[in-house]
Amino acid sequence: MIVPRLIERKRDGGSLATSEWRELIHAYCAGVVPDYQLSALLMAVFFRGMTREETDAVTDAMLSSGAKLDLSDMTIARLDKHSTGGVGDKVSLILAPLIAELGVAVPMMSGRGLGHTGGTLDKLESIPGFRTDLSLAAARQQLDRIGCALIGQTDEIAPADRKLYALRDATGTVEAIPLIAASIMSKKLAEGLTGLVLDIKSGSGAFLPELDREIDLARTMIELGHDRGCRVVALVTAMDRPLGNTCGNALEVREAIEFLHGHPPFDLAVVTYALGAEMLLLAGAATSRDEANTRMRDAIESGRAADRFRAIISAQGGDPRVVDDVSLLPSAPVQIEFSAARDGIAQCVTPRTIGHGIVALGGGRRAMNDVMDPAVGFDIFVKPNAVVAAGDVMAIIHAADEAGGMIGRAVLDEAISIGDAAVDVLPLVSHRITSASVERLR
Amino acid sequence: MIVPRLIERKRDGGSLATSEWRELIHAYCAGVVPDYQLSALLMAVFFRGMTREETDAVTDAMLSSGAKLDLSDMTIARLDKHSTGGVGDKVSLILAPLIAELGVAVPMMSGRGLGHTGGTLDKLESIPGFRTDLSLAAARQQLDRIGCALIGQTDEIAPADRKLYALRDATGTVEAIPLIAASIMSKKLAEGLTGLVLDIKSGSGAFLPELDREIDLARTMIELGHDRGCRVVALVTAMDRPLGNTCGNALEVREAIEFLHGHPPFDLAVVTYALGAEMLLLAGAATSRDEANTRMRDAIESGRAADRFRAIISAQGGDPRVVDDVSLLPSAPVQIEFSAARDGIAQCVTPRTIGHGIVALGGGRRAMNDVMDPAVGFDIFVKPNAVVAAGDVMAIIHAADEAGGMIGRAVLDEAISIGDAAVDVLPLVSHRITSASVERLR
Repeated sequence: MIVPRLIERKRDGGSLATSEWRELIHAYCAGVVPDYQLSALLMAVFFRGMTREETDAVTDAMLSSGAKLDLSDMTIARLDKHSTGGVGDKVSLILAPLIAELGVAVPMMSGRGLGHTGGTLDKLESIPGFRTDLSLAAARQQLDRIGCALIGQTDEIAPADRKLYALRDATGTVEAIPLIAASIMSKKLAEGLTGLVLDIKSGSGAFLPELDREIDLARTMIELGHDRGCRVVALVTAMDRPLGNTCGNALEVREAIEFLHGHPPFDLAVVTYALGAEMLLLAGAATSRDEANTRMRDAIESGRAADRFRAIISAQGGDPRVVDDVSLLPSAPVQIEFSAARDGIAQCVTPRTIGHGIVALGGGRRAMNDVMDPAVGFDIFVKPNAVVAAGDVMAIIHAADEAGGMIGRAVLDEAISIGDAAVDVLPLVSHRITSASVERLR
Repeated sequence: MIVPRLIERKRDGGSLATSEWRELIHAYCAGVVPDYQLSALLMAVFFRGMTREETDAVTDAMLSSGAKLDLSDMTIARLDKHSTGGVGDKVSLILAPLIAELGVAVPMMSGRGLGHTGGTLDKLESIPGFRTDLSLAAARQQLDRIGCALIGQTDEIAPADRKLYALRDATGTVEAIPLIAASIMSKKLAEGLTGLVLDIKSGSGAFLPELDREIDLARTMIELGHDRGCRVVALVTAMDRPLGNTCGNALEVREAIEFLHGHPPFDLAVVTYALGAEMLLLAGAATSRDEANTRMRDAIESGRAADRFRAIISAQGGDPRVVDDVSLLPSAPVQIEFSAARDGIAQCVTPRTIGHGIVALGGGRRAMNDVMDPAVGFDIFVKPNAVVAAGDVMAIIHAADEAGGMIGRAVLDEAISIGDAAVDVLPLVSHRITSASVERLR
């Protein structure tokens, strides 16, 4: 294996054999192939793409670089949900206890926020005491006991992916669809899933704002999963505005808890139920969308979903009383109302601006080692096309101090505009993608 | 300067500002920017190219990373010749003493062979005692004294180019025209030249076999030179067959010496005189091509060119008696005639096969630290379209042992074929390229 020749072959439009990718990634992880050769190759992949066989090879090489949750002796279905990342997206916090309560194992591996999108691990860690750094053995025990474990990517899981992702992040080679698909699926497949539901965000706040590239990404992940015994279904959901009414780690946990108590905002309910129904259908825990929705509603109205969340929080070291008293969550000392300056119709509520605004308030990360303030963020009560009158409270800024309050005001001034006519918005759930088809839902 | 953002900008078709390239290359040489970011950026440059301003910036950054020969107080013209690399190309060995003898300073910086092409430094070092590792100060003294210095790229000259070239060689990013142009010109401009003649090889044995890319490369170098006070002219010459009758380091020195004694093979004479005339015209040492040719012929026939070569060899520690007795050059113990198997017409004589064959005989390098045998190689007497009879000696193999002889025979069996009809060959000198035009010569 002469690495410059492999790089040149990919650069000139050829492909690498499965054995070449396997050997290359193995040698890279062993420190034999240097970073500078891999990064040049990854940039060539950005321009040339990879064949299906190559994507398979990279996924398998990363998956086999680490340990797997072996759940093959479990008799119940194992489902996870993965989102391509958005602003205000607290759906995982709701679905994990809800779906586990309905008899499906949920080994959920999440990430941290970076850039303008939040991360489920950060949100969970705003619950006092909550720990996400479980070993695979502890996660397995917890799954057996309470049907759900909420964990991060430990050193055990797909270490090749960790090393490769860090290199991609430093070298402008993140946005290559086969590499994104292989990275996500190598981790998800390590969870021993029988099914996976993908939430593909579309619109200006999405990771890949072009819908056709998002659909390509979804289909690649669906194929990778299917060939490895994990059925995958994807929904395309709106991220041209934030999801729900809160943006910021502790604020989003509060909204998830309110949801589990039966008080969801409309848009969050639509997206959460749609994704949850797909999970139950894939798990065989419902035979129709109607039955799935009924089961989810019952679990919430009976209080069982909230009970399950308390059990998960307790098991992972957190204070379960937050489920009954959200004032135990971190709260920001400065809270400022943000009002409409004039009568009119709310236009865009720009998720990227809000997401970067949370980082500016100290509630996100610019680099992986940044310390963040879980309490800051925004309550945003208006959606695009809401009719507002001058003086209406459109949002509340949660900031660490008065200076943060000023930053928050500037962020909202930029993110929320008021006009005189209605604007186009994306449907909350627009496409359903399976291995067989891309179905437009409305 | 956030390097991943710069990489992404180039990747997405944008360009970097002059100050960004300068800072980046400076930081790279200081070890602040790591290899893996540079290699990803260089791969993006391979796909996206660079604007003229970017190529200027990279050239200037590499040039200013090291020292220059300051020849500005010299009253005579300073000319060099650069070839894009071929097989059997010993033109520099002839033109250096010849042009210096005609009153033009020749500060000639050459490279080593790598891959299928030979290198002038390796050829010179086959002369017993000859040293090419002169300091810039020693080169300057020698130029003042005898008008010529034949040197390699020392650590003093364009160290950024050395570091970048090594990285490109390891990462499949050599063949990007603006990077090639910047690399060559940063070194040539460090020689303090007033003029430069480029020998752009075309045909199957050329570094870039596509002629239009070679012409792009020439024009880029011409523009880079002109803007920095160095007039540049390029000739496109044939490399669909080896140049002259010898291929191999010591064998080529022998042929150069025979040329300086007035015994050139036809093709080598045509190419050498054409390039030499351009040097003399650029230097103002001739006012017409006829006058230039007459001056060169006189210098050879009078013995003055050979005298100058003796002086150069002496000055650089070599044994000047080789000019009068080529048997003092290293010679191979095994010499085997290679004869035509049948009557017919010689078809191709494939330069890449011959070049790789010299490496196989031990006369070239696979890696920069390889030790090589200067004596091995080939005398090849046939050119494409030569009429041969069965048994005619077409070539002589010079090998270190009988096993080498077998290798040499296999190489020639592959490189030289005999057919029944004439084949198309490239004209020896096909184009003349200046800052104003690309002129087709025949």
